[in-house]
Amino acid sequence: MRDVVELGLGKIASRGYHLSDVAIVPSRRTRDVDDVSTAWQLDAYPFDIPCVAHPSDATMSPETIIALGRLGGLGVLNAEGLWARYEDPTKLLAELGDLDPEGDATARLQQAYAEPIKPDLIAERVRQIRAGGVTVAVRVSPQHTLALAPAIVAAGVDLLVIQGTIVSAEHVSANDDALNLKEFIADLEVPVIVGGCTDYKTALHLMRTGAAGVIVGVGGDDWATSDSVLGIRVPMATAIADAAAARRDYLDETGGRYVHLIADGDIQTSGDIAKAIGCGADAVMIGEPLSRGEGAPAGGAWWHSAASHPKLPRGAYCEADEPIGSLETLLYGPADQPDGELNLFGGLRRSMAKCGYKDVKEFQKVGLVLDR
Amino acid sequence: MRDVVELGLGKIASRGYHLSDVAIVPSRRTRDVDDVSTAWQLDAYPFDIPCVAHPSDATMSPETIIALGRLGGLGVLNAEGLWARYEDPTKLLAELGDLDPEGDATARLQQAYAEPIKPDLIAERVRQIRAGGVTVAVRVSPQHTLALAPAIVAAGVDLLVIQGTIVSAEHVSANDDALNLKEFIADLEVPVIVGGCTDYKTALHLMRTGAAGVIVGVGGDDWATSDSVLGIRVPMATAIADAAAARRDYLDETGGRYVHLIADGDIQTSGDIAKAIGCGADAVMIGEPLSRGEGAPAGGAWWHSAASHPKLPRGAYCEADEPIGSLETLLYGPADQPDGELNLFGGLRRSMAKCGYKDVKEFQKVGLVLDR
Amino acid sequence: MRDVVELGLGKIASRGYHLSDVAIVPSRRTRDVDDVSTAWQLDAYPFDIPCVAHPSDATMSPETIIALGRLGGLGVLNAEGLWARYEDPTKLLAELGDLDPEGDATARLQQAYAEPIKPDLIAERVRQIRAGGVTVAVRVSPQHTLALAPAIVAAGVDLLVIQGTIVSAEHVSANDDALNLKEFIADLEVPVIVGGCTDYKTALHLMRTGAAGVIVGVGGDDWATSDSVLGIRVPMATAIADAAAARRDYLDETGGRYVHLIADGDIQTSGDIAKAIGCGADAVMIGEPLSRGEGAPAGGAWWHSAASHPKLPRGAYCEADEPIGSLETLLYGPADQPDGELNLFGGLRRSMAKCGYKDVKEFQKVGLVLDR
Amino acid sequence: MRDVVELGLGKIASRGYHLSDVAIVPSRRTRDVDDVSTAWQLDAYPFDIPCVAHPSDATMSPETIIALGRLGGLGVLNAEGLWARYEDPTKLLAELGDLDPEGDATARLQQAYAEPIKPDLIAERVRQIRAGGVTVAVRVSPQHTLALAPAIVAAGVDLLVIQGTIVSAEHVSANDDALNLKEFIADLEVPVIVGGCTDYKTALHLMRTGAAGVIVGVGGDDWATSDSVLGIRVPMATAIADAAAARRDYLDETGGRYVHLIADGDIQTSGDIAKAIGCGADAVMIGEPLSRGEGAPAGGAWWHSAASHPKLPRGAYCEADEPIGSLETLLYGPADQPDGELNLFGGLRRSMAKCGYKDVKEFQKVGLVLDR
Repeated sequence: MRDVVELGLGKIASRGYHLSDVAIVPSRRTRDVDDVSTAWQLDAYPFDIPCVAHPSDATMSPETIIALGRLGGLGVLNAEGLWARYEDPTKLLAELGDLDPEGDATARLQQAYAEPIKPDLIAERVRQIRAGGVTVAVRVSPQHTLALAPAIVAAGVDLLVIQGTIVSAEHVSANDDALNLKEFIADLEVPVIVGGCTDYKTALHLMRTGAAGVIVGVGGDDWATSDSVLGIRVPMATAIADAAAARRDYLDETGGRYVHLIADGDIQTSGDIAKAIGCGADAVMIGEPLSRGEGAPAGGAWWHSAASHPKLPRGAYCEADEPIGSLETLLYGPADQPDGELNLFGGLRRSMAKCGYKDVKEFQKVGLVLDR
Repeated sequence: MRDVVELGLGKIASRGYHLSDVAIVPSRRTRDVDDVSTAWQLDAYPFDIPCVAHPSDATMSPETIIALGRLGGLGVLNAEGLWARYEDPTKLLAELGDLDPEGDATARLQQAYAEPIKPDLIAERVRQIRAGGVTVAVRVSPQHTLALAPAIVAAGVDLLVIQGTIVSAEHVSANDDALNLKEFIADLEVPVIVGGCTDYKTALHLMRTGAAGVIVGVGGDDWATSDSVLGIRVPMATAIADAAAARRDYLDETGGRYVHLIADGDIQTSGDIAKAIGCGADAVMIGEPLSRGEGAPAGGAWWHSAASHPKLPRGAYCEADEPIGSLETLLYGPADQPDGELNLFGGLRRSMAKCGYKDVKEFQKVGLVLDR
Repeated sequence: MRDVVELGLGKIASRGYHLSDVAIVPSRRTRDVDDVSTAWQLDAYPFDIPCVAHPSDATMSPETIIALGRLGGLGVLNAEGLWARYEDPTKLLAELGDLDPEGDATARLQQAYAEPIKPDLIAERVRQIRAGGVTVAVRVSPQHTLALAPAIVAAGVDLLVIQGTIVSAEHVSANDDALNLKEFIADLEVPVIVGGCTDYKTALHLMRTGAAGVIVGVGGDDWATSDSVLGIRVPMATAIADAAAARRDYLDETGGRYVHLIADGDIQTSGDIAKAIGCGADAVMIGEPLSRGEGAPAGGAWWHSAASHPKLPRGAYCEADEPIGSLETLLYGPADQPDGELNLFGGLRRSMAKCGYKDVKEFQKVGLVLDR
Repeated sequence: MRDVVELGLGKIASRGYHLSDVAIVPSRRTRDVDDVSTAWQLDAYPFDIPCVAHPSDATMSPETIIALGRLGGLGVLNAEGLWARYEDPTKLLAELGDLDPEGDATARLQQAYAEPIKPDLIAERVRQIRAGGVTVAVRVSPQHTLALAPAIVAAGVDLLVIQGTIVSAEHVSANDDALNLKEFIADLEVPVIVGGCTDYKTALHLMRTGAAGVIVGVGGDDWATSDSVLGIRVPMATAIADAAAARRDYLDETGGRYVHLIADGDIQTSGDIAKAIGCGADAVMIGEPLSRGEGAPAGGAWWHSAASHPKLPRGAYCEADEPIGSLETLLYGPADQPDGELNLFGGLRRSMAKCGYKDVKEFQKVGLVLDR
């Protein structure tokens, strides 16, 4: 059934589709927008909206994590970000928010992130967020998980996010101390979200590590450059649908363990959110869209967590623009612009209503058309 | 036969085509342009050209509705537009025609449409149009149909247009007073045009409500944003052809009831009109193209009826340009520009002649090529 | 074998390909460029290069027709152009060459072509070209063929070109005096080139009229607007290949009558010429590329023969740019620019050599790849 | 299995894919970047990175050839370039590096290359490079191979590169002295790299000439114009995969002779390098990317070896930009820009690690997705 083409003699490729290749098809039923629910729950943590923040310092500070949590979403602190490297990074963030994208923005990011990580600072941030009364999620890379996780967990985190560009359940290393995800998660007291991954098999293997959530995609957007740098480009509609099949198969093989899929890539507008759910995601990870709100830590500038890599940065620095609304308006409207950047989850809700669906899980079955 | 692809394991999408994906293929016969007819008839109302106006205040005032009717088309008044909210909206229209698309145009539209609807004004407009001696059509949204239709019908309307972004025959609501289209239409004395819809099944169900005409599409054009906001994008060639199949099947199941299809989306030029008919439409609903004529109510500016939604606007404000001709020249030429924006129905007529067809119904069978 | 898609239920379209969709694939053999021939022959008239000029006044004056003929190509005079309407149109051409494409260029063209045609002038031009010692070809539209052809033929033309946007062998008219191509050509003493057409069947029927050459395509290029105005867009690779099949079948059904195919559309560079031949054309009709040469009648400006239509113009006015070389350099080089606009037929010759072919007829079999 | 379409009746084309059409799909395994090797070996010559330089004077001088060799790549001198025509071309190179791409840049290149080739100078350059302690490779065109090769070989070259736009093993010529590749290579003492070619059969025939390496592609990039000039456009993913099949079949038919494939076309970034290897290449030939480094001979300007052809140039002159790093930084980083132009082979290495592969040969099997 999958469309497989022969690139050349004996070399095949399967065809993949981007979210921009598909569109939602309303069908014979419609529904009142007020009768629609966008709620979901991850492990013991309920959320009003299927919104997980990408752990970029450009958008996620302890303050904005608390604000997002109170509005019904899930903020994520980067344990390898500036809040873990500097006692008070607010001045630095202001400076980084004002860089010239045509100039040495990437080099300046690299400098800023060269400062060592201080586990004590991570613990302090966790306590601060917890005091805000919201679910606490912290992101760590697979490379630093063994070193940093104990301090993070001890500080009282609710959810640990182990996230790298590409994470597999089977990392090969000449080094004996490499992270074994399965053992690590089995021993851990807190639920883990892990990723990104881009295909059925990796998603399934990550589910088998015992993770509560799996991230699909590598955070691609207009500023990500993993295509140019690594040759890796993720057609998100296909990646999400394949991972959803892994979720189904894993549910069957475990007799009922449901792992949540969080789609992280090419999601900029309320329309993109609706399409990602329609392809099978349980929630979306949002990056740059949150930088457009008032009070964004870097004043509206945007960079990926991989944009500051010391040797091979993979993300362009995106200059700040005027904020287009408060965080609440970003999520819930009212919108005074027609482009899908405001009222992100009101747009999702209305899309669900126009198609006659009443909750996120049901909306995963919406009809899609391929037209590009 | 329909091309169905697997997006990912177990998630399929059928392939859809835009009008811009197809082109008309002339065949072995040609015909004199003077021997071709573009006339059609909806219920008891005959028209020289298959032209229905999109009910936007930017183009449809009582005056332009009368002018369009006298030229052989069908104008439509928006019962929820400015003419139903203000005693004399001409000054307001002039102001709205002069907004800055980069500024707060959408917010200003939202303010203007926050004024309550006054049923008395609707009745007055209907009488004014009727006095002009043309067919009177008024548009109301499904949400307000029960409240507004009685006054509209009492005022002497010829055709009622029930139009929302997406209208289904099966609206689910926790509210007991929701509109039941089938019952409503059965009880009504005047013929109803209803839509938009985007697929075979919804079109068929809408036909079964007893409607005289069904609108296919959601009014998409370069300024519409239902893709960004809702994730809904309608490949019009496919939507029209599917609805034409519903028309055929409904004609068969009723033993002869012919419901007219009005295509509303991505129609900007005479070439687009020809393609929409060639895909199976009986008529086209035209929006922005009518804003280019002299005497357009908002001076040439353009906005969709959904562009002023208070919480989730779905249409960008399009700044006025110099008018390119009178309304008559827009429809019948002569054109002094080669881009298909003038002589819209003369272009259709000549396309029909080049392909050897003599009327609109026959032209629905013209050959099409897919080349994008 | 042809890829046929279902646009919607019951409405199909076959897939067509543009020249820009295909590329030539060199194969296992190469050849010395000096061993390659680009010559062809139409009826009794031999030519060094498969180059027929589009009959636009912007490029074809009696002088340039003679120049092109002496260089081995075939110029064509438009019997309905300015040379047939004005005693001396050189001043007018200079004025038309200097119009503002953003202004009223089309309206000014329409005015210029409103002057009546004077058959005496056509005869005078024919004598002038004949005196230049080259093959004389004159274009007339199907609508004016009966009226103008006698004078043209009497003046001593070698080839009559009956060309309209779309020409069929079966024109339906309420008017009894309509042109019957088959009878007309049978009675005529001079060979006829007829077109444009876009499909197998029309091409075959045109061949059966007794024409010596058939024009495939409607002269499309970046300035043509038959897509916007009529919805007609011709995927030239497909149109040429289909007409080549008609040529083959007609050759078989007549036991040896070979009708030449002249491709008229989307040919701008030497690469396009090579692709058109590779799809099966015997020669190419070139329009705008000839306007780039020194001494072009309108100083480098370009307009199609259909750009001046009084009611429905179908071609944008293209402003003059600096000439890039003499007519000889355009055709034979040497090129001092790398974009395929100079040395048009030297580029064809080298392409043939790189692929190992020795003449135009053989090169029709070159391998093509589809990659867009 | 290969997707073959009917362009028109009886004319088929197989579908080809560009590197930009495909992307690499990480799979279930990852690997430490330090455990990955990018080394390869051609005949007796080992290299740290699969990098062969395109023989353009814009990037390859004796000095830069030595520098590239010391950094683990293979530089190539053009025996028909400026170093073979002028005693000291450095001033001329500086002048050529400063041309105006909108002006007469191509004409100036043509003048510079009109100076005759001096075999003594080639020999001198070869000795100079050899003295640098690196592998010495010299490029000659098929047309000049018989005349120039003896001097080149006598001067002590390690690898002879016989390269033209398109090279076949079966060149047809009316001239009796044409090059017979098979005989020539059989008689030669040094290993030969030959190309470019674009399909399975030509690649196989070139392998049978006894060549040690075969170049796939015609050096296409944003500045190459073989599509516009010749109609030849090479979908590199398909060309590489087809040639890799020829390599496999030739390995089998010879019982073990492995001919290396060098991909030359559309390779601009580290991501492109990874994709070319993933399609089956053993190494990549890099052109314009090397012009971005400090100390590039023409100061950063770029032109193809075919851009100076006296009659039919096929490559646009690309103006110099500021250098983005040293040659070492270009190849090995660290990058301070995120666009894949720096750290070209560090990017390759990391891509291999993300996909769990340990060497270049193994990485040829990486999964690819088609998504454009």
